Amino acid sequence: MAQHVDPSSNTDPLLFTPGPLTTSGSVKRAMQRDLGSRDQRFVETVARIRARLLALAGAEGDRFASILVQGAGTFGIESVFASCTPPDGKWLIVANGAYGERMVQMLDRLAVPCAVMRSPEDRPPEAAAVASALDADSRITHLAIVHCETTTGIMNDIGAVGHVARERGRRYFVDAMSSFGAIEIDPDACGIDYLVSSSNKCIEGVPGFSFVIARREALSSTRGWARSLSLDLLASLEQFEKNGQFRFTPPTHAILAFDQALTELVDEGGVAARGARYRQNREVLHRGMTSMGFRAFLDEAVQGPIISTYLLPEDGAFEFGDFYDYLSNRNLVIYPGKLTQAPSFRIGTIGRIAADDIERLLGAIADFLAERGIHLDAGT
Amino acid sequence: MAQHVDPSSNTDPLLFTPGPLTTSGSVKRAMQRDLGSRDQRFVETVARIRARLLALAGAEGDRFASILVQGAGTFGIESVFASCTPPDGKWLIVANGAYGERMVQMLDRLAVPCAVMRSPEDRPPEAAAVASALDADSRITHLAIVHCETTTGIMNDIGAVGHVARERGRRYFVDAMSSFGAIEIDPDACGIDYLVSSSNKCIEGVPGFSFVIARREALSSTRGWARSLSLDLLASLEQFEKNGQFRFTPPTHAILAFDQALTELVDEGGVAARGARYRQNREVLHRGMTSMGFRAFLDEAVQGPIISTYLLPEDGAFEFGDFYDYLSNRNLVIYPGKLTQAPSFRIGTIGRIAADDIERLLGAIADFLAERGIHLDAGT
Repeated sequence: MAQHVDPSSNTDPLLFTPGPLTTSGSVKRAMQRDLGSRDQRFVETVARIRARLLALAGAEGDRFASILVQGAGTFGIESVFASCTPPDGKWLIVANGAYGERMVQMLDRLAVPCAVMRSPEDRPPEAAAVASALDADSRITHLAIVHCETTTGIMNDIGAVGHVARERGRRYFVDAMSSFGAIEIDPDACGIDYLVSSSNKCIEGVPGFSFVIARREALSSTRGWARSLSLDLLASLEQFEKNGQFRFTPPTHAILAFDQALTELVDEGGVAARGARYRQNREVLHRGMTSMGFRAFLDEAVQGPIISTYLLPEDGAFEFGDFYDYLSNRNLVIYPGKLTQAPSFRIGTIGRIAADDIERLLGAIADFLAERGIHLDAGT
Repeated sequence: MAQHVDPSSNTDPLLFTPGPLTTSGSVKRAMQRDLGSRDQRFVETVARIRARLLALAGAEGDRFASILVQGAGTFGIESVFASCTPPDGKWLIVANGAYGERMVQMLDRLAVPCAVMRSPEDRPPEAAAVASALDADSRITHLAIVHCETTTGIMNDIGAVGHVARERGRRYFVDAMSSFGAIEIDPDACGIDYLVSSSNKCIEGVPGFSFVIARREALSSTRGWARSLSLDLLASLEQFEKNGQFRFTPPTHAILAFDQALTELVDEGGVAARGARYRQNREVLHRGMTSMGFRAFLDEAVQGPIISTYLLPEDGAFEFGDFYDYLSNRNLVIYPGKLTQAPSFRIGTIGRIAADDIERLLGAIADFLAERGIHLDAGT
């Protein structure tokens, strides 16, 4: 049966969100196939993806392994906690946003002990404070931190924190959900044992699965620890290495899309080039927003290129729902805020979007302000 | 950007498997869009799907609710165990195949007590025996069974077993993974509290998520019981009902495909018509296979229309890998066996395939036998 697709993407929204993102037409077209999950064509695709993920992390060779995990990124995060915590293990969660707090909730549900070291949402945690927290509690065996806290867009220093963890012989888990693929991460130099990201972030695939890059020496020591069958990482790795297959039905179409997305990441010039595009997106956005009088929540020194948080203007005529709908009706989708401290909204600068898309968004925001008669004073 | 797709599906395999399945071109084309997960267009799609799933189960009104769960079908199954087991709960698993045994493994990982009542793989469990098992252990609070055991294709009598559970006041969970959408299931008449199926089975969507149809009175009593954040069903239901959104990033493309698949299920004539097509597929298959001399593992009386198990012929020239590759090279994908008792293979009769596709498969199987000089004697 022939398949023809309307050129309907012109009417589809541009997504200025932390994911799902706007993806390329060719990534979506890669999903126009049904492959059997045990079929050789699919098995080869999975093997290629697993190798490419290691290459992206600069972790070729046999010290690390990559494991694909069905479900949202959150499932990948939980897979590490559920699989890699020893029976008498205890975690230290270094949190400065909602995704760090979500880790705490996960461990609570899993009935795994954890301590929490919190910093304000606009401040990266200090490595020295992490060191003190580890030194103060010898029961802590594992440490976890979010690289880019999507709550705000802040970048945490995973190298400095990893150094502290490694010095003290603790296992180290980095949630690189919204950074991997656009920001260089050297798992060895950072002392990372487990890193998680997902299909629908900076690699620009569609949502459907997450992946774990695990230090083999760490993961191989977890036998018998898994608290979940679905999320058992060591069992999944062993199955991949036995016959190239998933243990449970994989999202075959999302995986075909991801394979294409990885090709397009290489074609763009790899992590450095993709990061450069996102940084340019973010610079164009920030210049435009501040010139209109919007105030960023974060200092530029700690702001990453992934997503930016702006404080909701105090002008009574500026209502977030109205603002969101105005943009959405023009096929420009932004993201609500998640700050605990102040009303805000977020604009993502990742996905298959470029500076001219950002300019289009800025134009629509300017139109909104003009139509609503809102004048922002950057000084307030 | 305009999107054109090569009419490449002609070279894609036909899948005679239990899923991922062959889906329609229009189902795959529905994935050619990127929607934001919090966007109104997507939220409306999710609401429509959730309502349609209840309608498919004849469970409209407010006694049941449907919840979509990211990940493979196995994740949906585990979500029930991880969310709905009271702190002092104990399960009885009624098992006659690999999927029943997988439930036992899940509960083991979750450290939830369970008893197992096993029947041979070619025999449905007897309701009277289930009753005895329940009567013998008052600690058992919950009972689970697989409707169509994909290990063999056998149909278990979920009505009779449910009657026994209901009489004794035990909660009842049916894994309807490979039957829902093609075989009528009345959750109320069967006394079902929880039913699970997935996107890539008889509704003929693509893989990426599963769904739970839960009796509200049962699920609402589970507060505080969840052993997993990702798989917390009550929290997911509450989020869907609060703002129509998933708690964690949904597989947006697979969900758009599923919405289209549900439309096509209605257009085909609903569950009855779909089941009739699958039964016809299976009849054509069975007639052809037995006339060539293949022997079915199951008696016709307990065989369902979803998937059929054939014993591997004892002729030394018949080697499964060779047989599989021969068919796969002709874009016809079958499935390996999973019997514990005897070497076998399986052929699925679900998905966007019809009697002429089955005839094509039978022709290729006949060619294989002829080319390899294999003559099967149905009597042996």
